[in-house]
Order: sequence, then structure tokens, then C-alpha cells
Amino acid sequence: MARLMNFNAGPAALPLAALERAQAELLELGASGMSVMEHSHRGKEYEAVHNEAISLVKSLLQVPDDYDILLQQGGASTQFAVVAMNLLHIGAQAHYILTGAWGEKAFGEAKHAAGLLGGTATVALTTGVGDGKEKSYTRVPKADEVQVADNAAYVHLTSNETINGVQFGITEASDFPRTAAPLVADMSSDFMWRPFDISQFGVIYAGAQKNIGPSGLAVVIVKKDLVAHARKDIPKIFQYRIHAENNSLYNTPPTFGVYMMRNVLSWLKDSGGLYEAETRNRKKAAKVYAAIDAAGGFYKCPVDVDSRSVMNIVFRLPTEELENTFVAEAKKAGMVGLKGHRSVGGIRASTYNAVEPIWVDALAGFMADFAKANG
Amino acid sequence: MARLMNFNAGPAALPLAALERAQAELLELGASGMSVMEHSHRGKEYEAVHNEAISLVKSLLQVPDDYDILLQQGGASTQFAVVAMNLLHIGAQAHYILTGAWGEKAFGEAKHAAGLLGGTATVALTTGVGDGKEKSYTRVPKADEVQVADNAAYVHLTSNETINGVQFGITEASDFPRTAAPLVADMSSDFMWRPFDISQFGVIYAGAQKNIGPSGLAVVIVKKDLVAHARKDIPKIFQYRIHAENNSLYNTPPTFGVYMMRNVLSWLKDSGGLYEAETRNRKKAAKVYAAIDAAGGFYKCPVDVDSRSVMNIVFRLPTEELENTFVAEAKKAGMVGLKGHRSVGGIRASTYNAVEPIWVDALAGFMADFAKANG
Repeated sequence: MARLMNFNAGPAALPLAALERAQAELLELGASGMSVMEHSHRGKEYEAVHNEAISLVKSLLQVPDDYDILLQQGGASTQFAVVAMNLLHIGAQAHYILTGAWGEKAFGEAKHAAGLLGGTATVALTTGVGDGKEKSYTRVPKADEVQVADNAAYVHLTSNETINGVQFGITEASDFPRTAAPLVADMSSDFMWRPFDISQFGVIYAGAQKNIGPSGLAVVIVKKDLVAHARKDIPKIFQYRIHAENNSLYNTPPTFGVYMMRNVLSWLKDSGGLYEAETRNRKKAAKVYAAIDAAGGFYKCPVDVDSRSVMNIVFRLPTEELENTFVAEAKKAGMVGLKGHRSVGGIRASTYNAVEPIWVDALAGFMADFAKANG
Repeated sequence: MARLMNFNAGPAALPLAALERAQAELLELGASGMSVMEHSHRGKEYEAVHNEAISLVKSLLQVPDDYDILLQQGGASTQFAVVAMNLLHIGAQAHYILTGAWGEKAFGEAKHAAGLLGGTATVALTTGVGDGKEKSYTRVPKADEVQVADNAAYVHLTSNETINGVQFGITEASDFPRTAAPLVADMSSDFMWRPFDISQFGVIYAGAQKNIGPSGLAVVIVKKDLVAHARKDIPKIFQYRIHAENNSLYNTPPTFGVYMMRNVLSWLKDSGGLYEAETRNRKKAAKVYAAIDAAGGFYKCPVDVDSRSVMNIVFRLPTEELENTFVAEAKKAGMVGLKGHRSVGGIRASTYNAVEPIWVDALAGFMADFAKANG
């Protein structure tokens, strides 16, 4: 059938050009006599792909030289634990800023890790109600709300909450907090759609399955001094130091995932890089938010204007029944992945890099028609 | 160029049929309007692939109902730590049988984990010289050599040592030890090439990149009573319990890896299942060992006959210079991946399921010619 308009939250739409390249090369990478999946991770053919992928991350994001770029197995859910295992020294304290469901999960895993490691993990600030239990996160904190100990091991935040549609750095009012302690950001759904200043962060990690590739791969960008001081008494496979020393080839990396990331980032570079991507993405999101706001209250976005995510746009309709009809009729019109996360309900449209502007136009048109017919 | 004869140790050759299926479906899985990589892991299209992959593992290996089959991010190197984190309760002791380099690594990671977890990991038995430091592993232990405490948390072994070419269960003399404590086996390069009795084991884990798929995915088969009693104070992402309760969908699985495993296992089933595979594989390995033995001492396999691996055949030539010439000339003849692991040198031919019998015939012929010309 025709290619669907895919608004999945992740795994998500990938650029058609990156998929077509993978299809063309699937049986043979270059003139190498075998598939990329069949190459040794120690051979020069795979190594070229691996290094190109890392170098694309470095050049697209302008990663400074005092940061290591690591390619890791698994996704952000693994990093929730691993980042604490690396940075939470005995007696140290980590602070978690919670602005949604993923921050809660990261905090939960850090508490588990802290129990084994002899440190502590505490909530620095939550913008939800009742310690987030009601899951009513609607904004990121203001700069003066974030007060954490200067000597904390690190301060963790989730820069875009995929489920709640709350994102840092959308306007000046939602800018990232400045903290003396290293800032650690789960950027899974906030990675590689816009340029930003890496030097604000101690650690950035991102599961690939939003903007940069298939699931099963995470990119970790970590300041070299944090790597140097990270714990050495945890299993080697979890030590950032080991992966940094071995150019992420200590163990077998997920080679096909890295290859796909290469294809995706190569497409991103060819399509103008991150400045162009940000312009395209902001226009796409603005169209959907405009469709929400233009419907006279039929659609309601719970998120404060300054924190409204450019990647995941969440909104409600007057009733759950109407929401189900909305999803079903959108599907008939070729638009899928619009159901909100099962934990919060409602509608969610994810508008990652690979989501075509014409898909977004179609969605905005559909929203207007649906509101008119059902409002 | 033509498809090379690929003797890589892993990532390794994959069945051409599985790759061709992936190529045909790369842009669209079934009639779903998108690539398998773009599907949500919570959608019915991916879920069907996921469940088919698990069900193929269950039926091919005849996994009893009191075992859970888990699909995990990462490979065996992650499981080295994770298995200890799950099973090493405070005060408990785990025993490691070392028959090669991977067992040493697993033991090292268990010691790291034990340090954090309040248990201990000790070497139960090593068949190498000098506690394995000289890396001269040449056999698996005999049944009466393995004496471990009945109340141990578990006994760990590496059922096939990819680097050293030492394998359990090749003849009666190399059979798996019977222990009162649960037996935990790293089966990465020993998985899905022959039928075996799962009920001997408490845990089996295997990185996919040998016989069942691309790197970045591991299969863990674990007895349900071990899952029930595993530690709950470790991060959730590492708890077998959590993955068992969620059908390996607690976090986003490496969906393309699972899809490829489905393709590979589906090919394996169509090609006659594990009994047929064992016959084919034993014939292939026997041809290479015969070529070693027929060359009048020109080739030397250091491994005892009863422990000679059917998956990874290691041998030496009279000099390193001749070994380099061997690898270079084999490459000219279209045979690649024959260089031994950098830690031990020599030659290694890996003859996994997807290595065609005619490739092995070509290798055996080449070995005879090379010995004649250079012996």
C-alpha cells in the first residue's frame, strides 16, 4: 500500500532516503561481498561506517573536543541506570528535575542504583502535581525555581517529555536551567532536530528511535572530565570510561543500528543540517498548535505555551469517544500513530525530522474538518 | 562483487534467504505502509513479529513451559553483569568454570557486580594453565573435575569458547557437568545449531550475532523459579522479572534485530530445524578438522579431540608468516574472516548455520593445496 503518514512517538518515521539506501545496500555494503550485518565489527568496512556515524554526530552538533561521543547498546531506559552507576559516587547526591513520565522513570532507576552504590537520588523539583503522581505535568520549571546543591554529583532532566509534550528550550522562558553541578539530560526525543550549546551539559543521552535511527542504539555525549572521574567499581560494560577508551568497540556494537544512524544523519546533513531542520520542525509544530487554537476550544492542549513541545504535540478532545473517532477517521485518511500514550490518553502527534511537512498539512486540514463536523 | 565465503566469528554470515526477505520488506512490512523499523513496538504489526520470533525459539529448542524466553538489548557482554545482578543475593556465592577468554570476561564482570551486590564470585575450575593467564585453554573439564558447592547461587560456564575453539557437549566425554546448583550457560556461539536438553540449565543466554541475527540483541532463557527469586533491588531495566512480566516489551526492544531473528529462525525451521542443522554443521566441521589432520602436521589444532568446537575451528601453521600468507591467499580465493582472534593469533574458521557447505568444501580444498605448496 501507499506509504502512511506516520506520527508515531518512537520507533518513528525514518527518512525514506535513508531506508532506500539501506534497501539498496542490504545484501552488500559497498563492494564488500556481504551485508553490513555480516561484517566483523573489527573490520575496516564496518569501522568506516562506525566512524562516519560518530563524525556526523560531532559535526552536526558541533560537539566540542572535550566531550566523548559514545554509541551504546540499548536505549534511554538503560541509560537511566547507567548514568547513575557512573556518576553517583559513595555519599554523593543526584538531583532529578521531573517534568513528565520519563523523568519519573529515570528517577526511579537512579534510586535503585543509589541503593546499591551508596549514594542518594532525590527530586530537586517537580512541576507536576502531588509529586507527579497525578501526571499533570504542564510546563518546565522557571530558572529561579531550580535550586540544587552546587556540590551535587549531577542534576538530571528530561529535555523533552514524549508522553506529556513538555519541552525545555522552546522559548527563553523555558530555557535550560544553569546549575553549578553537571547537567545530565535525557534528550531521546529532543536530539538532532535543532542546534544547541553542548557545553551547558555534562552528559546528554538519547535513544535512537526518535530522530536518528532504529531502536536498540543510544548516543551518549559526555564531558571527558566526568568520564575520567566516573566509578571504576561497576561492571566494565557499564563504564563510560571503557567505551570511551575503545571508541565504542569494547563489545560488539549494534552494527546495523549504527549503519542506519549513519544513513539518517547523512540525509540530515544533505538536507541542510540542524539550522534548516529547526526551521522546518518549528513550522510543522506551529501548524498543529495553530489548528488546536483555531478550533474554538474543541481541541485543548494542556501544556503552557512556553513549554509546548515541537516534537510531540499532545491535545484532548471534548470526550474520549470523540478521541477514538478522531484516531479512527485519521487512520482512514492515511494518518497513523496519533493515539496518546496509554498512561495519559488523548491525542499525540509526533513531528520528528522525518515527518514530512505535507503530512502535517494533511493533519492540520483533517483537524479543522473534524472540529467543524463534530464541534 | 560476488558474495564472499564468510567465515567471520561474529557478527557472522547470515542466511541469504533471511537477508533477501529483509531487503524485499525493508520499505514496507507486509501491507502496513511503513518499514518494520518505523512501527511502534506497541502496535499489532510489530507485536506479531515479536511473538513469532519468541515462538520460533520455543518450538525449535522445545523450551519447556517452566522457562521464560526473554529478548534483551545488548549482547552477552551485558548479560555477564546482568545474570550476576539477578542471581547473586547478599552472601551468596557463584562459581565460574573457565574454558576460555569469554568465561574469563564473564567472571571478571561477576566480580565487579559481586562487589556492589554483597555476594562473591569465585573460579570453580579452570582448564587453562596458570588460572587461564596463559590462555592455553584446550579442553572442557571432565565430569569428575567439577566440584562446586550444592548451595551455590549458580555455576557459570561458556558452552562454546569462540576464541579458543573449545566446546561442551561434542562427545560424551565433553558433556555438560551436572550440578545441584543452577547451571548458567553463555551459549552465544553455541545457540541454535543443534537440539539440546534445556532442562539441564537454569539460565541460557546468547548474543544474536552468531547463529540467529544481527548484533544488538540477546536471547535469555531462564527458569521461572529463578526469575521469581531474582533480586528486586537492582534497576528495573536489569531485572529478568520485569522483562518476563512484560513479554520483553517493558522498554523498546531492538525491533529490527528481533525482526531479523524472526527471518533467520524461520529459514532455519524451513530448512529442517535443529536436527538437520546439527547434521549439516557436524559434517562441515569434520571436513575442516579432517583437512587439519590430513596435512601431516602442517596444521595443528591445539584443542583436545573431545572438546573441538563445531562452530569455531582454530588451528596454527608452522609460522606466523605462513599464517598471514594463508589469510591473504584465502582472501584472493574469496574466503574471508579466517584470521584468528587478535589475542591468540593463528587461524579460525567459524562454521555457523549460514556458512554454506560448499564454502567449507572450498576451504578444505584450499587448505590441502596450501599445505602441499608450503609444507
